[in-house]
Amino acid sequence: MADNDSLAEFLAVAVDAAKRAGEIIRKGFHEKKNVEHKGQVDLVTETDKACEDLIFNQLKEHYPEHKFIGEETSAACGTAELTDHPTWMVDPLDGTTNFVHGYPFVCVSIGLTIGKVPTVGVVYNPILNELFTAIRGQGAFLNGYPIKASSQSELVKSLLATEVGTKRDKSTVDATTNRINSLLFKVRSLRMSGSCALNLCSVACGRIDLFYELGFGGPWDVAGGAVIVQEAGGFVFDPSGGDFDVMSQRVAASNAHLKDLFTEALRDSGVTQ
Amino acid sequence: MADNDSLAEFLAVAVDAAKRAGEIIRKGFHEKKNVEHKGQVDLVTETDKACEDLIFNQLKEHYPEHKFIGEETSAACGTAELTDHPTWMVDPLDGTTNFVHGYPFVCVSIGLTIGKVPTVGVVYNPILNELFTAIRGQGAFLNGYPIKASSQSELVKSLLATEVGTKRDKSTVDATTNRINSLLFKVRSLRMSGSCALNLCSVACGRIDLFYELGFGGPWDVAGGAVIVQEAGGFVFDPSGGDFDVMSQRVAASNAHLKDLFTEALRDSGVTQ
Repeated sequence: MADNDSLAEFLAVAVDAAKRAGEIIRKGFHEKKNVEHKGQVDLVTETDKACEDLIFNQLKEHYPEHKFIGEETSAACGTAELTDHPTWMVDPLDGTTNFVHGYPFVCVSIGLTIGKVPTVGVVYNPILNELFTAIRGQGAFLNGYPIKASSQSELVKSLLATEVGTKRDKSTVDATTNRINSLLFKVRSLRMSGSCALNLCSVACGRIDLFYELGFGGPWDVAGGAVIVQEAGGFVFDPSGGDFDVMSQRVAASNAHLKDLFTEALRDSGVTQ
Repeated sequence: MADNDSLAEFLAVAVDAAKRAGEIIRKGFHEKKNVEHKGQVDLVTETDKACEDLIFNQLKEHYPEHKFIGEETSAACGTAELTDHPTWMVDPLDGTTNFVHGYPFVCVSIGLTIGKVPTVGVVYNPILNELFTAIRGQGAFLNGYPIKASSQSELVKSLLATEVGTKRDKSTVDATTNRINSLLFKVRSLRMSGSCALNLCSVACGRIDLFYELGFGGPWDVAGGAVIVQEAGGFVFDPSGGDFDVMSQRVAASNAHLKDLFTEALRDSGVTQ
């Protein structure tokens, strides 16, 4: 386990990289974008690539002995295996569809696992100028101010976030809308922002009480947000109620009071292990 | 029909009222809120009431001969009948659930109909500091800069917004999720912001290509946004494809290219006249 000085330095280097990448995102946000296709409804932009290069180069320069997992890297080299070594998981532009359309929920997401545990998290939305940060055991912050998950204890008064993902085969879409149908009878309302990492941060700062997503891109979408939720007093877990696995492409998050009720509602909605 | 000088003055008075109400909203946004229930999942806050008083008082002071339709007024006095007289339709705080939870999509929505036609529109999000304005025949603006609806002409590359509303009876919820299921096979992705007026403005500035909602609160949710979409080159219509009726609690909006394809998709999804 790294000592606190090292963790603080890891965070500072990641924040610097996120802010520099955020500048690129902000500049591109209102400009005409050259996009290429990646799957039916997924997009990757020049900005995405420029940000990934910037962040990985900066992290690798500082920490050549660390491991790295990223969306573009994995697409080229296959899914990486997670080890106990310090491992950076980077989504240089979470919410690429939003970026292309100019919808303001886009962010840089950087997470560091140590011993497979999310330990440092940085999520930066350069459009709304919101920087979420956390170090395991040291609290979570939004632009330097401490944040806490909500105190809501009733499901019926809770705001739920989820996403519809990018897969459009009938069985995935039916399962997605069946879950939403079941959950709508139990929660106050539903939001879809288009960014997994920002949904986690919304749970962390109490804007959203509940979030789940199945089948998102990869660990880079959740590694940063997971430690931010946990350090804000919230829970991160598998949608079935089991332990969170950063590599599983399944995530649920709630405040400290709603995990059991939410897990039960997710099971009733058709989520299995 | 009012002359252009009168319309410019109507807009200026409405913008001033919206900005002053926006100050109240911004102040309340991060404070602890005293909320009371209005239906199962609807909320009305002290802020909502303070903003409504401020806006109606200002408009009535300037235009004592005009008519007024508002959410709280209608709840107390029954639904107003729309006449040809200049009629202000005001939602002092659209996105009250977002306001209570601290989710940043909240706005003041002010629309003026003349001869039953939406003619002046002001939608102001004081959290993101975005002011959308339009006068019929004179273009639409975001913070003073001209805006245009998107140029997307393919449904499969389009971003759709809708909302799940507040009714939780089985037939409404089933119809809502059946529509979403059907539409997901045809569009790129789905967003839910929790504000009808801001969804319309997102179509107007091209962040969203398509939006529909059935069974929202009332004409105050759409009167301002409708003229903003139209003046940005977009279309506002009934989800069945028929003419938009500001009083109908049904709205669809698209850019200039997608109306027919969207209408067909909405019909396939179960929307009837």
